[in-house]
Amino acid sequence: MPKRADYELYYWPEIQGRGEYIRLAFEDAGASYRDVAREPGGMKLMLGLLKGEGRHTLPFAPPFVRVRKGGQVLAQTAAILDAVAPALGLVPADDAARSTALQHQLTIMDFVAEAHDSHHPISVALYYEQQKAEAKARAAQFIEQRIPKFMGYFEQLLERNRKGKRVHLLGSEHSYVDLSLFQVVRGLAYAYPNACARLARKLPRVHALHDRVAARPRLAAYLASPRRIPFNEQGIFRHYPELDLPAKRGATRKKRR
Amino acid sequence: MPKRADYELYYWPEIQGRGEYIRLAFEDAGASYRDVAREPGGMKLMLGLLKGEGRHTLPFAPPFVRVRKGGQVLAQTAAILDAVAPALGLVPADDAARSTALQHQLTIMDFVAEAHDSHHPISVALYYEQQKAEAKARAAQFIEQRIPKFMGYFEQLLERNRKGKRVHLLGSEHSYVDLSLFQVVRGLAYAYPNACARLARKLPRVHALHDRVAARPRLAAYLASPRRIPFNEQGIFRHYPELDLPAKRGATRKKRR
Repeated sequence: MPKRADYELYYWPEIQGRGEYIRLAFEDAGASYRDVAREPGGMKLMLGLLKGEGRHTLPFAPPFVRVRKGGQVLAQTAAILDAVAPALGLVPADDAARSTALQHQLTIMDFVAEAHDSHHPISVALYYEQQKAEAKARAAQFIEQRIPKFMGYFEQLLERNRKGKRVHLLGSEHSYVDLSLFQVVRGLAYAYPNACARLARKLPRVHALHDRVAARPRLAAYLASPRRIPFNEQGIFRHYPELDLPAKRGATRKKRR
Repeated sequence: MPKRADYELYYWPEIQGRGEYIRLAFEDAGASYRDVAREPGGMKLMLGLLKGEGRHTLPFAPPFVRVRKGGQVLAQTAAILDAVAPALGLVPADDAARSTALQHQLTIMDFVAEAHDSHHPISVALYYEQQKAEAKARAAQFIEQRIPKFMGYFEQLLERNRKGKRVHLLGSEHSYVDLSLFQVVRGLAYAYPNACARLARKLPRVHALHDRVAARPRLAAYLASPRRIPFNEQGIFRHYPELDLPAKRGATRKKRR
């Protein structure tokens, strides 16, 4: 990677987490970026910026991005995407569509927060093992109510958008919101494979979008590369079999990276 | 209110909730808006739009806003504010500042979601009474960890921003983000008065910002009017004494609207 990249991403180096929505946008656009905290000495740099070393706007938490052009430090996943997407060609140019993209991204981020809290309903400061009983109760509600509500909503959006031959959340154009929805589908399939398998029939367009995104050459290359951190039990989408529905007889689970 | 207002707000008529961040922006700017679901027949209209009657972009949930100019329907609190703030004069004009405003608003909305979950840690589909024990555990963590972390962060932002004589989150300009932080301070003081009283000494700038905003003439008029719905136990900030810290001896609680 070039020494002076157009973008510097700062995010926890061992998980996909919220940083992955930014990584997917950079990778899909073929942008020149560094994933700083994964480089030697990068974690120290990131923690320094988080403590306010420098004169940038203080981020509340990773991910944050320093933009070479202008030097601004951007934080909050959806705000970062909104700011960088025009230059990456990942959002339509007009204000109305850009605003709709932000709206959809925020709904995705709300869902991501709920996916996280399905295994951490009491506190991020405690281990999963310290809130297992509460997680069981919350995950049951997440599976029964929240996954169908959110994923059904995106299915409806795709159904109402008849522009173009292929499935997109915004008109007939590929955008960062499609990348983010792809990531949520992957994450859910990793964390709650049995619950997702039962719901798949009701979400044909969501899955068609997932497949379209996965086949994009730069994205496919990224997913197959070591740059893609595998899902794991430190991230947002975690696979705890006891929180998922039981498997249907004869079903098998495909491993996803 | 005029029959053809510039903005139509759609939100639950009996709570401040997330709609309040939009109401505060409209009221502070003296905008021409209707609070549709509080008018006769308005709830039916709102529920119809939520079900997808019409050709607008489907909102996931209230609040949403229909803009007279252009007819766009905007949803997601932070995306609505980002879209309407330039015309309301509630955000600096340059892109970098607008992006920073969005970033701060998203951090505020993250905190608002956590404030909600402090009394509903298991599910929005269950009553508080059905998750009281879990709420007690989550509220304790919220008070001990999350309120100091978020409010301390905003205090730091204000401390780092030395522009202008008075306290603002963005440079030396009043913005919608200041209105939203004001609302969070009010909400917390309603829901967790004892916890807030103990923390107040550490947050002088946050409270100075609150006081500056509260004294703005149009905002003060709004807060004293029947248009301001009182805080209550259907909203996001709820006062359940059993979730708060015990009162210090001699302390009294001021009632806030």
